Amino acid sequence: MMILIHKSHTMIASFVSTLLLLIVGVVNSYPEGDKISSLPGQPRVTFQQYAGYITVDDNHDRALFYYFVEAESNPASKPLVLWLNGGPGCSSVGVGAFVENGPFRPGDNNILLKNDYSWNKEANMLYLESPAGVGFSYSSNKSFYDLVTDEITARDNLIFLERWFAKFPEYAKNDFFITGESYAGHYVPQLAFLVIQSNTTFNVNLKGIALGNPLLDFNVDMNSEADYLWSHGLISDSTYELYNTICNSSQYMRESIDGKISADCARVNNVSSSEISDYVDQYDVTLDVCLSPAKQQVYMLTNQMHATQNVDVCVGDKLVVYLNRKDVQQALHARLVGVTKWSTCSTVLNYDYHNLEIPTLPLLGTFVELGIRVLVYSGDQDSVIPLIGSRFLVNALAKEIGLNTTVPYGVWFQGKQVAGWTQEYGKILSYATIRGASHEAPFSQPARSLVLLQAFLQGKPLSNNI
Amino acid sequence: MMILIHKSHTMIASFVSTLLLLIVGVVNSYPEGDKISSLPGQPRVTFQQYAGYITVDDNHDRALFYYFVEAESNPASKPLVLWLNGGPGCSSVGVGAFVENGPFRPGDNNILLKNDYSWNKEANMLYLESPAGVGFSYSSNKSFYDLVTDEITARDNLIFLERWFAKFPEYAKNDFFITGESYAGHYVPQLAFLVIQSNTTFNVNLKGIALGNPLLDFNVDMNSEADYLWSHGLISDSTYELYNTICNSSQYMRESIDGKISADCARVNNVSSSEISDYVDQYDVTLDVCLSPAKQQVYMLTNQMHATQNVDVCVGDKLVVYLNRKDVQQALHARLVGVTKWSTCSTVLNYDYHNLEIPTLPLLGTFVELGIRVLVYSGDQDSVIPLIGSRFLVNALAKEIGLNTTVPYGVWFQGKQVAGWTQEYGKILSYATIRGASHEAPFSQPARSLVLLQAFLQGKPLSNNI
Repeated sequence: MMILIHKSHTMIASFVSTLLLLIVGVVNSYPEGDKISSLPGQPRVTFQQYAGYITVDDNHDRALFYYFVEAESNPASKPLVLWLNGGPGCSSVGVGAFVENGPFRPGDNNILLKNDYSWNKEANMLYLESPAGVGFSYSSNKSFYDLVTDEITARDNLIFLERWFAKFPEYAKNDFFITGESYAGHYVPQLAFLVIQSNTTFNVNLKGIALGNPLLDFNVDMNSEADYLWSHGLISDSTYELYNTICNSSQYMRESIDGKISADCARVNNVSSSEISDYVDQYDVTLDVCLSPAKQQVYMLTNQMHATQNVDVCVGDKLVVYLNRKDVQQALHARLVGVTKWSTCSTVLNYDYHNLEIPTLPLLGTFVELGIRVLVYSGDQDSVIPLIGSRFLVNALAKEIGLNTTVPYGVWFQGKQVAGWTQEYGKILSYATIRGASHEAPFSQPARSLVLLQAFLQGKPLSNNI
Repeated sequence: MMILIHKSHTMIASFVSTLLLLIVGVVNSYPEGDKISSLPGQPRVTFQQYAGYITVDDNHDRALFYYFVEAESNPASKPLVLWLNGGPGCSSVGVGAFVENGPFRPGDNNILLKNDYSWNKEANMLYLESPAGVGFSYSSNKSFYDLVTDEITARDNLIFLERWFAKFPEYAKNDFFITGESYAGHYVPQLAFLVIQSNTTFNVNLKGIALGNPLLDFNVDMNSEADYLWSHGLISDSTYELYNTICNSSQYMRESIDGKISADCARVNNVSSSEISDYVDQYDVTLDVCLSPAKQQVYMLTNQMHATQNVDVCVGDKLVVYLNRKDVQQALHARLVGVTKWSTCSTVLNYDYHNLEIPTLPLLGTFVELGIRVLVYSGDQDSVIPLIGSRFLVNALAKEIGLNTTVPYGVWFQGKQVAGWTQEYGKILSYATIRGASHEAPFSQPARSLVLLQAFLQGKPLSNNI
């Protein structure tokens, strides 16, 4: 049994490493096979990186891919942060690590650029592609993909964690945080709950969870969309009226999932889509969109790029090229199983979309009651899971579990400017917006996001002083 | 009588210039005394600039200051655009010309930078400081400042125009547009209405008016504020609730104007102000604010400036320094009368704030019925006079006067990206948002604003093709 092998291997490794630590002080027992010597095109760094597979089902050869980046300095004393992207079915390594908060981002000409606001300045970052079928994670038995649920995802993620800690035993003693965004509003609390439940056999120091623009409550989150689109000028008064009288977003989504879209809902959706157009990124309503290379060229030539942009909106395309390079996959110890191409979001997975309706807000209440810190934050330019719904839900939760406001709603600062708004409840539950940030907040507001992470990890309120 | 002197002078000048035009083709009769040879620190340009005074009350020595910038090319065939800033009491020359859509903006070290998106690429731009007491405009009789009303402002502006055209007679034949922003939602339609009424004695080709983030209807515009602040994350759910149940913005403003703020309204305002903080520019909710020089230095040193900024939020401070230089005032033929310092917004004027409640929306209906084009646009980052109210008002007006939608609500483009949303009614009334733009739209989104102007002047819908 793989799990036993790992455990016994770990015990020995752990013993040896402890011994060595006593002797030389700076050695660890981590798997040499997973160590990344260098990623193609990467700048020089001093921290270690690992990537590879953890089998989560030995009988059916199902394995999850991870990318682990040690903290830039003093990794032993820094927390361990697991990061999960959403979808369901999108890659944490691709989006999270290489677009949002990892140490590198793909630049032009296939090189990697250093991210000055990488979260590994504050933590050891563990990116997990989950469930199998996402990114480089796979199941040799393809029938696994037929109907994957939140329950399956959480269970596989737990097994992953147990076995990952067996490979990296020293990290079991570090403060541990589970973070993620979007549909990770399901993944993160569900995994955290299993971690707590299994804490007799599997001992980690789970201190908190952080969720960015998360799906927590289907109706509230979905129906905030119309408010957001209307107030930000993306739809007209009359279309807003249609949402409020004919078919709201949750109804449309529910009908879509069931594959039976009513004429009313189709009509509202058509009018709305045509007003918003395909040329607006609904995950960041003010950000430019990535143009085709020909259009880009004209744009650059007329020198209009600088006027509105300070983030690379084309990074997603560069990412796909980069992670599909053979030398990159080799450096990452990644392989393509059952797919011909690495994709940002899975092309093989059939996720049970009815799971979108599973409420995860009550789980957050459970964590708070167990003394586990909970942070919900919103990139305020996202219309898909907008701040409106998340702010309401956190406030409602605080009321329900009887937490008082300890820091009233107000601004927080980063670099002498307002980085967003925050409210804290009972010093354990907090809500924050990140000003000017997209659904993928660390991508569009990296400096502000890093400050947010720092406060979260330290269990301190965000700074309300300039 | 000054007006007669001007007129007779003009007749001769006009005759001479016509004669000269026949001979050399490129001469005009404009007042040599008002011609600007060059502004201190300005880059080389080929167009002409004029600045000076037009007396609007000969008996009381009341004079309005103007700055006139001829179009970059072919001024004779380009429209004439009058621009008015709001307040009431803020400077069109300072804010409009030197921060928003004029050819230059103050840079560091007292130099002027060229604005690549100056509106004089499309039009001859006339900036008027109005009423007397604003900017360089003055009344020697200080009692004029005691209670200035919309009626007085409009009447003085009309006299200004009549006498300005007498000084620049060739421009009487050009297409004429009156534009402005904010409280110019009063100034512009009220002046346009007088222009139309006086059209027997005073003949100009008024083709249209354009209003940016204008005050059109006190209740609707003021009460959009809470919706905007809430949906953009600047206030909490509970404070939004206070606005909706205890004291809305129009009530607070009304009480402020009357100098009797109720405890309820004071409370709502206090809570809201404390949530928003002093460190957010309510005229652009995502823009950074100008820091004190010491804080700026730290900010620049830590290299965080580029991450969030691409407009100079400190331009206002540079403007005050620039326009208070003696050599600049000399070059502009400006003088300080009754004040020791040029100010962005008047420090002497006592404007009748009850005038805020005068509805100007019906005037827009009158213009439309007379065949005069009306454009209302909103910088969508402004919480003070937000898009929410303006969009509603224009739509309501269209319904009331029976105009059908000719271009449905949808995106418009500039430089291959979505520049905002627009709706057009009956090919004569239109509404547009400028994406990512502040209350002073041409300041924060100059390229998009210039494209908007171009379409407006040409009477064409904004482009809905990429």
